[in-house]
Amino acid sequence: MTVRRLVIVGGVAGGASAAARARRLSESCGIVVFERGPHVSFANCGLPYFVGGEIAETDSLLLQTPDSLRSRFNLDVRVNAEVLSIDRAEHTVRVRETQTGREYTEPFDALVLSTGATPLRPPIPGIDRPGHFTVRNIPDVERILAWIGENRSRRSVVVGGGYIGLEMAEQLSRRGLATTVVEASPQVMAPLDPEMAAWLHRELVENGVGLFLGDPVAGFETPGPGESAKASVVVLRSGRRIEADLVVLGLGVRPEVALARGAGLDIGAAGGVRVDENLRTSDPSIFAVGDAIEVRDRVTGAWGIVPLAGPANRQGRIAADNVFGGDSRYEGTWGTAILRLFGLAVGCTGANERSLRRAGIPFEALHLHPGSHAGYFPGAEPIALKILFAPDTGRLLGAQAVGRDGVDKRIDVLATALKAGMTVHDLAELELAYAPPFGSAKDPVNMAGMAAQNVFAGRVRLAQWHEVAGLDPRRTVLLDVRRDDERERGTIPGSVHIPLDSLRRRLEELPRDHEIVVHCQSGQRSYFASRILTQAGFRVRNLTGSYRTWNTATQTPRS
Amino acid sequence: MTVRRLVIVGGVAGGASAAARARRLSESCGIVVFERGPHVSFANCGLPYFVGGEIAETDSLLLQTPDSLRSRFNLDVRVNAEVLSIDRAEHTVRVRETQTGREYTEPFDALVLSTGATPLRPPIPGIDRPGHFTVRNIPDVERILAWIGENRSRRSVVVGGGYIGLEMAEQLSRRGLATTVVEASPQVMAPLDPEMAAWLHRELVENGVGLFLGDPVAGFETPGPGESAKASVVVLRSGRRIEADLVVLGLGVRPEVALARGAGLDIGAAGGVRVDENLRTSDPSIFAVGDAIEVRDRVTGAWGIVPLAGPANRQGRIAADNVFGGDSRYEGTWGTAILRLFGLAVGCTGANERSLRRAGIPFEALHLHPGSHAGYFPGAEPIALKILFAPDTGRLLGAQAVGRDGVDKRIDVLATALKAGMTVHDLAELELAYAPPFGSAKDPVNMAGMAAQNVFAGRVRLAQWHEVAGLDPRRTVLLDVRRDDERERGTIPGSVHIPLDSLRRRLEELPRDHEIVVHCQSGQRSYFASRILTQAGFRVRNLTGSYRTWNTATQTPRS
Repeated sequence: MTVRRLVIVGGVAGGASAAARARRLSESCGIVVFERGPHVSFANCGLPYFVGGEIAETDSLLLQTPDSLRSRFNLDVRVNAEVLSIDRAEHTVRVRETQTGREYTEPFDALVLSTGATPLRPPIPGIDRPGHFTVRNIPDVERILAWIGENRSRRSVVVGGGYIGLEMAEQLSRRGLATTVVEASPQVMAPLDPEMAAWLHRELVENGVGLFLGDPVAGFETPGPGESAKASVVVLRSGRRIEADLVVLGLGVRPEVALARGAGLDIGAAGGVRVDENLRTSDPSIFAVGDAIEVRDRVTGAWGIVPLAGPANRQGRIAADNVFGGDSRYEGTWGTAILRLFGLAVGCTGANERSLRRAGIPFEALHLHPGSHAGYFPGAEPIALKILFAPDTGRLLGAQAVGRDGVDKRIDVLATALKAGMTVHDLAELELAYAPPFGSAKDPVNMAGMAAQNVFAGRVRLAQWHEVAGLDPRRTVLLDVRRDDERERGTIPGSVHIPLDSLRRRLEELPRDHEIVVHCQSGQRSYFASRILTQAGFRVRNLTGSYRTWNTATQTPRS
Repeated sequence: MTVRRLVIVGGVAGGASAAARARRLSESCGIVVFERGPHVSFANCGLPYFVGGEIAETDSLLLQTPDSLRSRFNLDVRVNAEVLSIDRAEHTVRVRETQTGREYTEPFDALVLSTGATPLRPPIPGIDRPGHFTVRNIPDVERILAWIGENRSRRSVVVGGGYIGLEMAEQLSRRGLATTVVEASPQVMAPLDPEMAAWLHRELVENGVGLFLGDPVAGFETPGPGESAKASVVVLRSGRRIEADLVVLGLGVRPEVALARGAGLDIGAAGGVRVDENLRTSDPSIFAVGDAIEVRDRVTGAWGIVPLAGPANRQGRIAADNVFGGDSRYEGTWGTAILRLFGLAVGCTGANERSLRRAGIPFEALHLHPGSHAGYFPGAEPIALKILFAPDTGRLLGAQAVGRDGVDKRIDVLATALKAGMTVHDLAELELAYAPPFGSAKDPVNMAGMAAQNVFAGRVRLAQWHEVAGLDPRRTVLLDVRRDDERERGTIPGSVHIPLDSLRRRLEELPRDHEIVVHCQSGQRSYFASRILTQAGFRVRNLTGSYRTWNTATQTPRS
């Protein structure tokens, strides 16, 4: 069927991308974009930075306007126009102009749904009090800025430690507000494993942000006697009361599927519109893209909601191809994402321990702490890098990284390796660009691969940071092979000390009937020690990530 | 055969790496490392930065010492010890202590050659005059610094615009010396195609470095009347005479194969020791690694010399595995490399146009100029990105990138994609980490893939910058679709101007019997224009990289 009339619902990210691509494929098709809000094609990922002033002008966030889309792509863009319903039999949508209330019907040959996702507002008592905000669009952040200005807000509370919550905490802090993050679970950033999220806890506290973990909000209250709060007093389950002149709700999002559900389209178990690889819904003339759809996780196979801008934009392009008879495919997601938090960057790609356990996929977890570039060149910063791989095949399953430099590069390399189905052997042999300002002759990704090869080949067995507390001293020696000066800055309780360079001549000090769990600062020297001990006949495990990982994972952030 | 005695010739990079790995595999093997120079395991890639003072201490360059290698790895490291010959029948090497002249014989079960490469010194008249230096090791740079200090050198000439030459030019300049680069060929950095190297020409000149291209050195002379030069007057073939208080020779390197050749081991056509995938030479008990060997180019299949630290270090590890009966393989090289030159980074991976032509491999070349991160977030810098891909399969063949931010990341992603055998379709669908400070919803690598998909699918045909000069105005219209203000800053001679946003209503101004070659600033808007024109029935090509690529490629650097 020739598509003469394409209707797109939602003019941001996936919708805008689909519209522009559609025009490049067909000059003759009528393309109408309906957007409920006042803006199309704005930079949602930039919203927090506008609040903090790092992006100075609203105009910077407006990537396109209805006029620019009309003149460049000959698109009929209608803002403040809400699509109320879809008549699949008639191939029409019912539209209401939100400012005039006028309703009308628009016909389509093909329809692309890019309805996005709505911030969650769970039924917590007082959640709808004034001074509480979610962050989804430009009017939201304009309202936040107006509130801050009018009320001279000095103290903000961010509820929820996900991407938006942490970005908002950073930017409100940057703006000079005393800011507190409260999070119901014991860690921020659910896509990270807890020992990696711990780096973010430290960074928040070191930058003066209050942090309460594992303590959900019980309610938002009017200030009591002796309290003051221009928004609410945020009351946690523990009883703690936090005075807030501004409350930002960053509790996650829910796919906006009312339109699709109303039209009888399949909705998946994760709550998103169900689509096939061509991004076609259960109605062959209706496509759906972006935060509104469910996608398959490429590692675990699980369906889920992955509200990320990159996939949304690519999906828009793919859907447009298929509208015009193409066979472009969206293969699924690895959940690749990154966050800047003050001086830190934290990124992840693929599965984490939790998602692998849930999917019943066996894995090995490996930690290392290489420098962002050659240690002999100024400015190198350590990267806390974690990879997960399949013990039977060596196939990479996921990666997480935190650090002040070079994190985005390593996550992107590992995301590329994941898509390619690479093993740890491939990682060891990647030929990455090396000059002293940029990397090392053995890049952190190579080192991760090489360390994993050693596990894969049985040259070393690993112990994990969370096993340390449970080690039985009657059967296990916890051996520290660091230098004296390193031990002065902190030790793992109960550890025995033999520096690596004297280990060969002091082997007789170690009991042959005990397992030796050996550690250093980052895990490299303790690997060398493991090899010496293993070849000397000891039963040995290397504490992966060693003191750095253990120390960060077991700290209690104090705010 | 059990290896009880391993001898390694050369204690830097590949040799050091082989020795350390060998010890981790075997505590019982005797491991002797012979190093002709005074230092082992030093950071050769850091040498230029020590000259410029960016690395302040020689100690920083000494990654290990004989003592540290002895105490940590139980290695018998003998510096100032030159291996003179190999007796393959007897399984011994003949060694001379360079300081005492004493000679002795050392037995081996397995031998690893890591003899490196020597800087070229072609027979140019006067090349051996005092004040001329090559840069291979720590004594070399100490001699350069001593010369600069003793002679109060103010003017340096760097002969050769390769990696070492350009790094030295930057660092000598940083040290305050007026510096000139002279290069026999018309461009610096042979691994780059000329239009990409042109960015470096501009950067050199803008940073006050003199640059003479396509003008080989005819001789080095004593200063004549009216001339002064503490080293030489560098005389070019054009007759130009450049006064130099210091001359650095960066004319490339030659594999040091005298030892291997003397022992009758196979030497390849490219002049390096020939090895198999296990890095075994033609003698099964002798391995060779690093700059001394020939390696296979993974894209073209050609044997060549790739003197890079990353491969050398990985080869050392692989050779050690195989010494002890393993089957580790070195698969070949993509020549992935990167250079920092003042504010620019330039990187490449895989084949370039020249090497593909030489190998008879058909390719498409695509240029684009995306931002290093989201344009709405402060600090984004354009990246000049080029990819080469197979027209029949879409397979990636090579990539080059230049810019002030984010170059290393994109080259590493593309290097990973190359190893994985990815196509441009894969690049389009890579899920890379996006947040505004780090990238874009469509990353530059995605954009390269998408643009290439359009070529692959026949949605657009490309014109190249070097074809512009030859376009016949009787048959071709060169159409500029930029804005007026962009044209004010420069145009391609002969171009006709119709801004993109008025193109649809001005189609009748274009002759239907001419081919339209359309350009904008970077190639994206002209792609949109190409689609409008193609669908309107015109014959069209899009000038890939558009004005930015053409303008940089055709500039004449003025120094």
